[in-house]
Amino acid sequence: MTEVRTGVSANSPETAKIVLSVDAMGGDKGPATIVAGLSRFLSDASDAHVILHGPQDELSRLVDRQKLSDRVTIRHAEDVVQMTDKPSHVLRHGKASSMWSAVEAVRNGEADVCVSCGNTGALMAISMMRLRKADGVNRPAIACLWPSTNPSGFNVMLDVGADIRADQDDLLTYAMMGASYARNGMGIEHPRIGLLNVGVEEHKGRAELKVAHDLIERAAPKGDFDYVGFVEGGDIPSNRVDVIVTDGFTGNVALKTGEGTATLISGLLREAFMKTPLSKIAALLAMTSLGRLRKRIDPRGVNGGVFLGLNKTVVKSHGSADATGVAAALMLAHRLATLGFSDKLAARVASAAALAQDTQIERSDDPAGKGRTSQ
Amino acid sequence: MTEVRTGVSANSPETAKIVLSVDAMGGDKGPATIVAGLSRFLSDASDAHVILHGPQDELSRLVDRQKLSDRVTIRHAEDVVQMTDKPSHVLRHGKASSMWSAVEAVRNGEADVCVSCGNTGALMAISMMRLRKADGVNRPAIACLWPSTNPSGFNVMLDVGADIRADQDDLLTYAMMGASYARNGMGIEHPRIGLLNVGVEEHKGRAELKVAHDLIERAAPKGDFDYVGFVEGGDIPSNRVDVIVTDGFTGNVALKTGEGTATLISGLLREAFMKTPLSKIAALLAMTSLGRLRKRIDPRGVNGGVFLGLNKTVVKSHGSADATGVAAALMLAHRLATLGFSDKLAARVASAAALAQDTQIERSDDPAGKGRTSQ
Repeated sequence: MTEVRTGVSANSPETAKIVLSVDAMGGDKGPATIVAGLSRFLSDASDAHVILHGPQDELSRLVDRQKLSDRVTIRHAEDVVQMTDKPSHVLRHGKASSMWSAVEAVRNGEADVCVSCGNTGALMAISMMRLRKADGVNRPAIACLWPSTNPSGFNVMLDVGADIRADQDDLLTYAMMGASYARNGMGIEHPRIGLLNVGVEEHKGRAELKVAHDLIERAAPKGDFDYVGFVEGGDIPSNRVDVIVTDGFTGNVALKTGEGTATLISGLLREAFMKTPLSKIAALLAMTSLGRLRKRIDPRGVNGGVFLGLNKTVVKSHGSADATGVAAALMLAHRLATLGFSDKLAARVASAAALAQDTQIERSDDPAGKGRTSQ
Repeated sequence: MTEVRTGVSANSPETAKIVLSVDAMGGDKGPATIVAGLSRFLSDASDAHVILHGPQDELSRLVDRQKLSDRVTIRHAEDVVQMTDKPSHVLRHGKASSMWSAVEAVRNGEADVCVSCGNTGALMAISMMRLRKADGVNRPAIACLWPSTNPSGFNVMLDVGADIRADQDDLLTYAMMGASYARNGMGIEHPRIGLLNVGVEEHKGRAELKVAHDLIERAAPKGDFDYVGFVEGGDIPSNRVDVIVTDGFTGNVALKTGEGTATLISGLLREAFMKTPLSKIAALLAMTSLGRLRKRIDPRGVNGGVFLGLNKTVVKSHGSADATGVAAALMLAHRLATLGFSDKLAARVASAAALAQDTQIERSDDPAGKGRTSQ
């Protein structure tokens, strides 16, 4: 991805290696927050250039004020996808939107990676239509990072909301994609994969989970990951796994429950420290340590769900992200683009698809599943 | 429930109004922990008597040591249901177990309520077989309390793991049962009910959730609750709802994810306070406030999942509960028995069943669902 791009405006320095296509609209806090996040990001990422999509006049003012005009190319787009818009409506009527324009710049090769704070369903729908699913992927997934007691400080969970359904083959694909993401995005050579269930015993859970359990177990040696078997909700922030595989309904509920619990506890903690004069002094004394803790569990620090299973990488930032959150999502997008992640993932999934076919043939050869013991 | 029971041994004082049937075995920490919890509970609940199920000799020693023999009747049971036993196995071979014996004492009217720390699936299976489902209930549910920013400090969520499936009619029943539990167990006259989904917009989520959404909305006036519509994972610990309705797979994952997140943060908090000499002093100064916070989010304080939808009340304590946790589960069981909860719930569900039938008739009269606007 080092070639000089012709589609990028004259503002783009020839030296910029990574181009990010950023949707300025659709976040809850408006384009000023996006541009503020952009400014933080660009001061850290010297090799990055940004194409920013939205209303020309408004964005020009914001970009000029932050003195970013030599690092940012504005691409005018009239419309904004609203949080309440149905994906199907956006697919029919959203062509003039900043979101569509942002995806399009990745599609036509002007940019390496797309970032948006907008409506998740609409972003996934446009991305699937314009960027297409990678070979062998039936359902793309959204992967998020989760604070954990792992050495890296994070686990990956997918799907957290691309699709409310996932069958056994989708779950196998998620395992392969999650392993690839953990390897490339987080540098974990041999990631541990777990399948989310309501218990760790083999007889528990839905039928498709039991089949997926066998499929993923068989795929582990070729997929270059450890399969730890079923994991429970309590394992998500643990050091038992690196990647948690689940359907998008369960993953989305788990993600938001975890965030809600963290918010509840932070609020109660603040209350506890404001309670008495002594506890106020304590808060002052422990400020540095508590600041570190806050940073560690701050959802803004791990902002950015990555769409996996498309031909290009799209990063979805939280709709309510502030400048810190936006900068984190941009940094994640930049890292993945630098690694050439989408190509590596496509290669991994293609091999997974071949593998699943093999397994299916084995399964019909060996309906009792006795072949399993040979792996 | 004030009549003198003939089945209770001579140890039971005639004045005891509430009799709890307690499975002494099957918890991770063994019967000594159960008896320690029992001792704490009995010192608070002067009107309670306990029938304790398990190996006579071992339990006699423990009960004597705690000087509880006038408040506790031991019922000998040879076998113990293991955490790894399949429910179907226990139904066939578990008749000599302490768990079976504990349920049986409620079935034959010796006790008002049953409490066990053992295998959840087995306890539900025995309870369903021996106590039978209440009229109008297809799938019983397990309800748990969840720390929240509500005035009461807690929300109720169900189902958290009785069954991995729930169709639209089950979800309606859960709403009615959850409302009854919030009203009786927590004193909330007009509880707010929410249906867990991946977004609050009406078009989101699985098909059965959309139907359940309409069913619960229609049932709200007669069911004497407010229906707030779809809620997300982040709302579970919030003040937006009192009762969160979901299927047992999603509810179980959410519960364990919330617990896991709380455990992660507590661990990091402890670490933060041990980091520097200053933060250690801070920890000392804030000890009282932090103790209050710990108590507030301590899962032991809200220990006890309640089985709803059976003809009698069964309380499932956490397998890993310590004496404090066991005492909390016993206290919850005692409160529900005092209120005559199982009878109230049965009445409520019977009316829900009638209501669902009405709605079904309306639905087939009015397939376009236009009748909805009239409510």
